[in-house]
Amino acid sequence: MEPSTRTSPHRHAERVSHEDALIHAILDEAVVAHIGFDNDGPLVLPVVAVRIGEHLYVHLSTGSGAALRAPMEVCVTATILDGAVLAKSWFHHSLNARSVVVRGRAELVTDTAETLRALAATIDRVAPGRSSASRPPSARELAATAILRIPLAESSAKVRTGPPVEDEADLDLPFWSGVVPLRIVAGQAQPGPGVEAPAPATAWSVP
Amino acid sequence: MEPSTRTSPHRHAERVSHEDALIHAILDEAVVAHIGFDNDGPLVLPVVAVRIGEHLYVHLSTGSGAALRAPMEVCVTATILDGAVLAKSWFHHSLNARSVVVRGRAELVTDTAETLRALAATIDRVAPGRSSASRPPSARELAATAILRIPLAESSAKVRTGPPVEDEADLDLPFWSGVVPLRIVAGQAQPGPGVEAPAPATAWSVP
Repeated sequence: MEPSTRTSPHRHAERVSHEDALIHAILDEAVVAHIGFDNDGPLVLPVVAVRIGEHLYVHLSTGSGAALRAPMEVCVTATILDGAVLAKSWFHHSLNARSVVVRGRAELVTDTAETLRALAATIDRVAPGRSSASRPPSARELAATAILRIPLAESSAKVRTGPPVEDEADLDLPFWSGVVPLRIVAGQAQPGPGVEAPAPATAWSVP
Repeated sequence: MEPSTRTSPHRHAERVSHEDALIHAILDEAVVAHIGFDNDGPLVLPVVAVRIGEHLYVHLSTGSGAALRAPMEVCVTATILDGAVLAKSWFHHSLNARSVVVRGRAELVTDTAETLRALAATIDRVAPGRSSASRPPSARELAATAILRIPLAESSAKVRTGPPVEDEADLDLPFWSGVVPLRIVAGQAQPGPGVEAPAPATAWSVP
């Protein structure tokens, strides 16, 4: 992406990237994102956001505030937490994380084929291949679903990795310092009553 | 909290709560939150938000856009992902999650004691007790840190738990359905060079 004045933070500018491949990889891994928009003041809601090509798609109920307000300016931010960074000083404590900020105008998708592609991608994000292993929406269900489409044109990634920064003067302090890696893992799948089909793969590894 | 028109969503209203104990518990467990505010359009950024009493505190760099704009209206949303909900139909796929939305006016903290309390809580959120096991900030470091304080007066929680909703007509479809529990776990702690102190406990369990 081309950097814009709206996606070029001052803070830790060296950690910010406008590289498409990195932006895509983060958006394709994060399952929960947060969408922000004005709704009688700033409002931020958790959503599942999926990327298809150079657009991000977010599904909502047709009755939701966001669906009723579209088209509108939004910001969708996806954050993947990779680790806790414990430094010798409070000041250098941090989190290792990869995040993408997408700013742009969200429009309602009106084309049924595009709606179905976005919904299939959403289902497959949670469990790969799952859109072929569950029932597609009826006309009534489709009518209850609104899809927002946001272009990736104005987006940026921010990545922090590696050990804590330490001030030279702190190095001899007797405290532990280092990184505790963090990740999301899946537990034992809990089938509903009477379900005999094998449990599907999900986007998360079992520890 | 008293419900306000700004924290009473239409969608799945039965999953929404204004109970203080629930709101506090979610805010006290989530490590990463997202703050939204207007900065030449909606902007959403990942932050660590900590609760002390009836306020939420978010630390930022003094040079950041949010710090420069305060006091300002914000929304801070914390989301804890608990599971993937796989239904027989696309439509009833969901995520089990607990989230809190806090809307209100963010003000810069000017009192040093309050700043230190908020920073200590932030460090301890990541690793309990860690604020006593690392060096507190110098005057220069404090000057580089801005703390936003947001009242919890206008906040609400939303919780989805349990198995998928299924339509009666879908029950005999041959697909797996159920819940895959998800959680964040810590991996093996990676000490920095020369660190010999024992690794601290963190907010996450080791699988």
